[in-house]
Amino acid sequence: MKKAIITISRQFGSGGRTVGHLIAEKLGIPFYDKELVDQIALESGFAPKFVEENGEHAPGKSALSYAFTASGIPGVMNGLSTADFLWSIQCSTILQLADKGPCVIVGRNADYILKDRKDALHIFVHADMDFRADRIVRLYGESEKSPISRLQEKDKRRSVNYQHYTGRNWGASENYDLCINTAVVGVEEAAQIVVDIINRSK
Amino acid sequence: MKKAIITISRQFGSGGRTVGHLIAEKLGIPFYDKELVDQIALESGFAPKFVEENGEHAPGKSALSYAFTASGIPGVMNGLSTADFLWSIQCSTILQLADKGPCVIVGRNADYILKDRKDALHIFVHADMDFRADRIVRLYGESEKSPISRLQEKDKRRSVNYQHYTGRNWGASENYDLCINTAVVGVEEAAQIVVDIINRSK
Repeated sequence: MKKAIITISRQFGSGGRTVGHLIAEKLGIPFYDKELVDQIALESGFAPKFVEENGEHAPGKSALSYAFTASGIPGVMNGLSTADFLWSIQCSTILQLADKGPCVIVGRNADYILKDRKDALHIFVHADMDFRADRIVRLYGESEKSPISRLQEKDKRRSVNYQHYTGRNWGASENYDLCINTAVVGVEEAAQIVVDIINRSK
Repeated sequence: MKKAIITISRQFGSGGRTVGHLIAEKLGIPFYDKELVDQIALESGFAPKFVEENGEHAPGKSALSYAFTASGIPGVMNGLSTADFLWSIQCSTILQLADKGPCVIVGRNADYILKDRKDALHIFVHADMDFRADRIVRLYGESEKSPISRLQEKDKRRSVNYQHYTGRNWGASENYDLCINTAVVGVEEAAQIVVDIINRSK
């Protein structure tokens, strides 16, 4: 079937977001990342900062401090925890975005949420630790934590969140149509491979 | 670094062997699969049938019945079980093959054995259950077991063998440079993607 929706899951620092951006640019279709975060935030009443920090992280952590936002909407609604409420909003937003037409969606467990759409192509972008460590220091600068610790912490949080909400293992190849190591293949080349697959699909 | 050695790990029925064969053909380099089995057999003194059946399966199973082969070499040597002896022979054979020059090696945990070679590209080929079930019936015919049971049994044996000898999870994307779902990407296209990566590497 002709593929139209591309989901990108990625290890922190692998360049997955850039791969997604390049694909959207080459195909001339919308790219959802922070834009998606904002949209989720708007619908949920959560502050964008909270959505950004918790959208792919371990559920339940310090959620209480965010329970009331500037909009005045309480985080615990209909018996759901803030994390579960956020998850339900993410699901409906991503399903709606996909219904609107071709697009690239980065992160937010979109591969799982859209697993039943035959027109979706699911990509996982990863890279060797050294490549990622070098990249995050170059892009985001140094911090008090070592780059390796920052990578391990972020990967762990994404992995726990994914496991919790999907029951699947984050980064297991069977969940994706294509997994690419950008340290070997290259960021530009990874994007081109995906574009070629999309263009060849029918 | 210029990639020269391609290892292909694959789920049973995914077309991974064919992908490997096409890559070797397109690049004009040797392809090792049954040929490799024979070579291992020759060096180990095991019958080719035993190597083929046990090379990627759970260790220890019914090994005793194979302990003596036509060549008269006992399977239990130097305190190693037959499975461990076979593993050590596989390792040295695969390392030697890679040393000989560019090639494609299918299966036999070659991704792990050659993980430290910078000129190796590691591929995992997988596919949806329906695609694989259809494919094995078409290629190998019906049997008394259902296609799904045959796939699950074979996958499990490969997975247990891989975990046992490498300590890693079979099919975890981080072990490979590229993981491809042939049910979505196509067998021919998968081979072409790999050839393009090889030709672009430097």
